[in-house]
Amino acid sequence: MPSPALLLAAFAPDGTTTFTPADPAAAHLRVDDLGATRGDGVFESVGVVGGNPQSLRHHLDRFARSAAALDLPAPDAGAWAGAVRAVAAAHDPVPELLVKLVLTRGVEGGGVPTGWAHAFVPVDHARERTEGIDVLVLDRAYPGDVAARAPWLLQGAKTLSYALNTAALRHARAHGAHDVVFLSDDGEVLEGPNSTVVARFGDRWVTPPPELGILDGTTQGRAFGFAAARGERTEVARLRRADLDTADALWLVSSGRLSAPVRSVDGAPRPVDAALSADLLHHLLTVHD
Amino acid sequence: MPSPALLLAAFAPDGTTTFTPADPAAAHLRVDDLGATRGDGVFESVGVVGGNPQSLRHHLDRFARSAAALDLPAPDAGAWAGAVRAVAAAHDPVPELLVKLVLTRGVEGGGVPTGWAHAFVPVDHARERTEGIDVLVLDRAYPGDVAARAPWLLQGAKTLSYALNTAALRHARAHGAHDVVFLSDDGEVLEGPNSTVVARFGDRWVTPPPELGILDGTTQGRAFGFAAARGERTEVARLRRADLDTADALWLVSSGRLSAPVRSVDGAPRPVDAALSADLLHHLLTVHD
Repeated sequence: MPSPALLLAAFAPDGTTTFTPADPAAAHLRVDDLGATRGDGVFESVGVVGGNPQSLRHHLDRFARSAAALDLPAPDAGAWAGAVRAVAAAHDPVPELLVKLVLTRGVEGGGVPTGWAHAFVPVDHARERTEGIDVLVLDRAYPGDVAARAPWLLQGAKTLSYALNTAALRHARAHGAHDVVFLSDDGEVLEGPNSTVVARFGDRWVTPPPELGILDGTTQGRAFGFAAARGERTEVARLRRADLDTADALWLVSSGRLSAPVRSVDGAPRPVDAALSADLLHHLLTVHD
Repeated sequence: MPSPALLLAAFAPDGTTTFTPADPAAAHLRVDDLGATRGDGVFESVGVVGGNPQSLRHHLDRFARSAAALDLPAPDAGAWAGAVRAVAAAHDPVPELLVKLVLTRGVEGGGVPTGWAHAFVPVDHARERTEGIDVLVLDRAYPGDVAARAPWLLQGAKTLSYALNTAALRHARAHGAHDVVFLSDDGEVLEGPNSTVVARFGDRWVTPPPELGILDGTTQGRAFGFAAARGERTEVARLRRADLDTADALWLVSSGRLSAPVRSVDGAPRPVDAALSADLLHHLLTVHD
């Protein structure tokens, strides 16, 4: 049983951030930490394949944007990058790791954030990666212009307030599916609860735009790198519900599961290009960026 | 400086819940508790006035409904009621306390919830209670039928995923206001980020209905008790944005601040009935239910 590893952040008044090893099986958070009582914080999950953190700069840029959206202190990118590498190195060697970076608003009234970097082995997604996933399309019930119109709703920031994302996944599983694609109130394809939608139409690869109040996917960026290397076109563009029925291939991509081909949408079978999906997965497992 | 008090829950396999005193200034949560990493849990904040927990049954009923919405194990009402009384009794005697009850999904993969009851002195709201508050109306960007249409969004459950509520309050404070009233995408008055709207039109007191995906307010229930005792009418009914400009009086009510009269909405002054507001506050501070 490989041991997870943990580094706790300390934020000095001069702005420097240092990390100290700690026991991941011990308690480190107070019950009045605003991360725990309000989901008031931000996170990233960095995939580490063969010891190499993937898309680390992209993750840290997004971490900083999420923190800014919540008026949290800007994370020190160098210190956090060092923490990712150090916590991954401290973990028992395994083919795949996830490193979760978390920054909360800290203990209520304290004015000092809480932060940590936690390396652990992700859930085994081997079957979903190769056999594909059944997906339900669920109403996210916000308009596509939510991010511009109502920034206080924090759409597009990767916050710790993920209860609805896990509830949507439970709903899917209770209905015999593996995962979810959210649809906006005005029919725009958004994202999965913890993944990005990638669709292929002929030689054109498409993912929905972040201005819809969704995350810019780090693994989606890597998948587009794969497509571009094959000489295919990549495009950030809006997709409608009907596009999910006409795409030549669909995937949900994320840092932990990497790529999972969608084999059905709301119960209707969708074609899975097994060879292409295997090539994409191989790229995500072997090409370091 | 009065000392907060804390009881930690233990959930036995036979379903019994027991509580043990713990040091609130020490760490009790692991970094992989789903309460901290996903805001995946529920809470209640029970006001304790003169040693008496207010609307305890209503709080525990709502706690149970929130837990059910998240597929969490049903909280043992008797054990949690005992914990509220015990943790309040363990706190230094003070005129007003809040007891926060929290139930999370527990450590990821562990299958056992985490829970606690934490008694502490709330922020001093004396000025807001008497001088009134300036309120901004902010877009909540969901349709009024969200709760029926998309239960996976957990609207109406009191979850730990409150980052957007605190962001909306920061937005208001950055714009010179104290608080927020959320409006649905279709123009229905909803609730505050951590309060309930109560409006008075003549001798008619109105609060918006929970089917809009909002909480049924415990303090609102107590305010309606005050109105009914005066022989006035109380009604759960929809309010539109314009009703906020025509009401004879408006309050935001909640367990910690109790009642705060609204003295302006989006910068437009609103009449404050100082005598009636004082009577309402006196009721909430002295009548135990």
